[in-house]
Amino acid sequence: MAALLLRDLAQVATPAADAGQVARGRDLRAVDVIEDAYILCRGETIAAVGRMRDLEPLDGDIEEIDCAGRSAVPGLVDCHTHPAFGGDRVGEFSLRAGGASYEELHAAGGGILSTVAATRALSPDALLERVTEHAEWMLAHGTTTWEGKSGYGLDHDTELASLKAVRVAGGSPTWLGAHSVPPEHPDADAYLDFVLADVLPEAAQLADAADVFLERGAFDAPRARRYLEACAAAGLALRLHGDQFTESGAVPLAIDLGARSIDHLEATGAIGVQELGYSDVIAVLLPASALFLDRPMPPGRALADAGAAIALATDFNPGSSFTTSLPLIASLACTQLHLAPEEALVAMTLNAAHVVGAADRGRLAPGMRADVTLLDAPDWRYLAYHLAGDLVSTVVRAGATAYRR
Amino acid sequence: MAALLLRDLAQVATPAADAGQVARGRDLRAVDVIEDAYILCRGETIAAVGRMRDLEPLDGDIEEIDCAGRSAVPGLVDCHTHPAFGGDRVGEFSLRAGGASYEELHAAGGGILSTVAATRALSPDALLERVTEHAEWMLAHGTTTWEGKSGYGLDHDTELASLKAVRVAGGSPTWLGAHSVPPEHPDADAYLDFVLADVLPEAAQLADAADVFLERGAFDAPRARRYLEACAAAGLALRLHGDQFTESGAVPLAIDLGARSIDHLEATGAIGVQELGYSDVIAVLLPASALFLDRPMPPGRALADAGAAIALATDFNPGSSFTTSLPLIASLACTQLHLAPEEALVAMTLNAAHVVGAADRGRLAPGMRADVTLLDAPDWRYLAYHLAGDLVSTVVRAGATAYRR
Repeated sequence: MAALLLRDLAQVATPAADAGQVARGRDLRAVDVIEDAYILCRGETIAAVGRMRDLEPLDGDIEEIDCAGRSAVPGLVDCHTHPAFGGDRVGEFSLRAGGASYEELHAAGGGILSTVAATRALSPDALLERVTEHAEWMLAHGTTTWEGKSGYGLDHDTELASLKAVRVAGGSPTWLGAHSVPPEHPDADAYLDFVLADVLPEAAQLADAADVFLERGAFDAPRARRYLEACAAAGLALRLHGDQFTESGAVPLAIDLGARSIDHLEATGAIGVQELGYSDVIAVLLPASALFLDRPMPPGRALADAGAAIALATDFNPGSSFTTSLPLIASLACTQLHLAPEEALVAMTLNAAHVVGAADRGRLAPGMRADVTLLDAPDWRYLAYHLAGDLVSTVVRAGATAYRR
Repeated sequence: MAALLLRDLAQVATPAADAGQVARGRDLRAVDVIEDAYILCRGETIAAVGRMRDLEPLDGDIEEIDCAGRSAVPGLVDCHTHPAFGGDRVGEFSLRAGGASYEELHAAGGGILSTVAATRALSPDALLERVTEHAEWMLAHGTTTWEGKSGYGLDHDTELASLKAVRVAGGSPTWLGAHSVPPEHPDADAYLDFVLADVLPEAAQLADAADVFLERGAFDAPRARRYLEACAAAGLALRLHGDQFTESGAVPLAIDLGARSIDHLEATGAIGVQELGYSDVIAVLLPASALFLDRPMPPGRALADAGAAIALATDFNPGSSFTTSLPLIASLACTQLHLAPEEALVAMTLNAAHVVGAADRGRLAPGMRADVTLLDAPDWRYLAYHLAGDLVSTVVRAGATAYRR
């Protein structure tokens, strides 16, 4: 079995073993830091983590990487991305910089539907090529596990091609069949009739989870419930885009349905924060989207203080968050959401792994999958501190070097 | 003479020839975009820029770079950085993420003076090594011309070593002798007595400009005037850190002294904006610093609308803006300062070059220095759109390839 030794690391930082299966409250800060450390991988799994001085002589054929001056964190987990799209929205971005609002651009025929048209125009191979390129961008930023949504097809073939492309490119597919109402359907109800009858049966075979955009102008709470209940019956885990622009009943719905996560929450008020604090629904915060759209940041500090389980993700998509950098998200978490670096790390490793349903990831400990992101930094907190830095030097995924700068 | 042809570029974008020596008002949006383009460099200079179909056969030994799928902008100019420092401030960053304010941390013995201690502890060679590393970071983000300040020495030897290190590493040195009052001096007046008598004579030989931190807790307006007038008499161009936390008379002082720039301006009100609109002082905006400290953004849109000449820079430093990425600054300019991508580009090329006193840079046109940043993007506006993207693929500086990813 192949062995890989990462030696002489300045620091290894990992969510602690007692951080809980999903960390919340004080456990969100439970990060173990080992100085002058090593990580030993055997096959696809971590065999040992410890201090160099405790490293015993190793037998057999072992590949070694000298990690002097570098720090290790668990391979990052991006639990909310929309990588299956054609075209871009750079023209819309430029218009918005000149003053137009997201909702105005959406109403003017920009927004999601312009990407739907560009995505439908791609062959399945071309779509896979795009998703694969996006996955490479993620990897170069230290991401070893990622979720990828459909939702820019909104027809039978393109939705299924999107889910397949995410799977083939190495991601965990989420069927975002209820992202927007495409123009060939007269209204949201008619679209849901179509999509639940004609797409769900196959989508449920390809996807790990289902997701809905519960928002003014997209799907309201009763329609979101209808979509999610049908998806749950087909065996999919549930997620929601909720409270991005308006508080529209997404939090109670997520809790009532036992959703795995509710994502966005920029508009969530004090009651919603408290409700999430008492629930098992993971609050997925997407600060790059708030930055990109110049909208209020989600209440990260308040959610953490209320005892909510929080995760962080990029929300990578062409319209409202054109970034694949989880290190940038860590910087935004610390500067804009007022989270400690420890909370940011746990939120984009251990907790994000649970959002994706990958409980074997997100910690550097024996038995976990050997996913390690090496940072060119003497202190692991540079992950957040070195804003937009060229920080990620090497990425190990399942015990093998997947990226080297 | 060596020749280099950048061919088959998707786009070339450059401040227009008629953008004015320093662009302001409508000229800030004057960007020429050429599709399917080439750039021909001869020696250190641009010889021609045009469309591929107009490219005539070339004689002689010409190196060619196939730039299909890539876009070119002028080599970026970072006109405000503090690269000469030892240590880091990651501990302070983490404390602030937990709730402490910048001024509280400063008062608690963190802040600038902690970096002063770490910088004084470095030998001149070690300081040069740090500055050189920081210059490499800048280059990898597409920066071909940069200004670097002293100001973490605040004693004779370290200030001069800082200026020399910036020069040797390829930057334009600015003497920030009045950054803070170090503990060995009883007060600001006594410190200025020392620094103007014992450091200025040699600093004036090494630096291109002088700078002062005009702020509550640092130097007030009368002391800033004293420092700057002495520096002007010694032949240095003048710059000011003004209105970062409080409006303290920096704008009128900058105008009265004919300073080349006033930098920060997060706290500048409507009157200051109007005054800058009528003046020749360039307003240097540093949005990453506002982001890093979670402070209000500077009034970029209002300044541009008032007719001010604006530039953009990273403010790279260990305490309040640990970033060397001008592409990130472009993203923040568009999303947080409400500037169009064209305004952001002009502000970090043509106008920033004038802040640094490098009038031969900042445009892609015959006769300008051949500084070109190639972006992995079909549209040059990805510079701002692709948030924290690994965008910069190749950098040409003075006609030679200086960086390739």
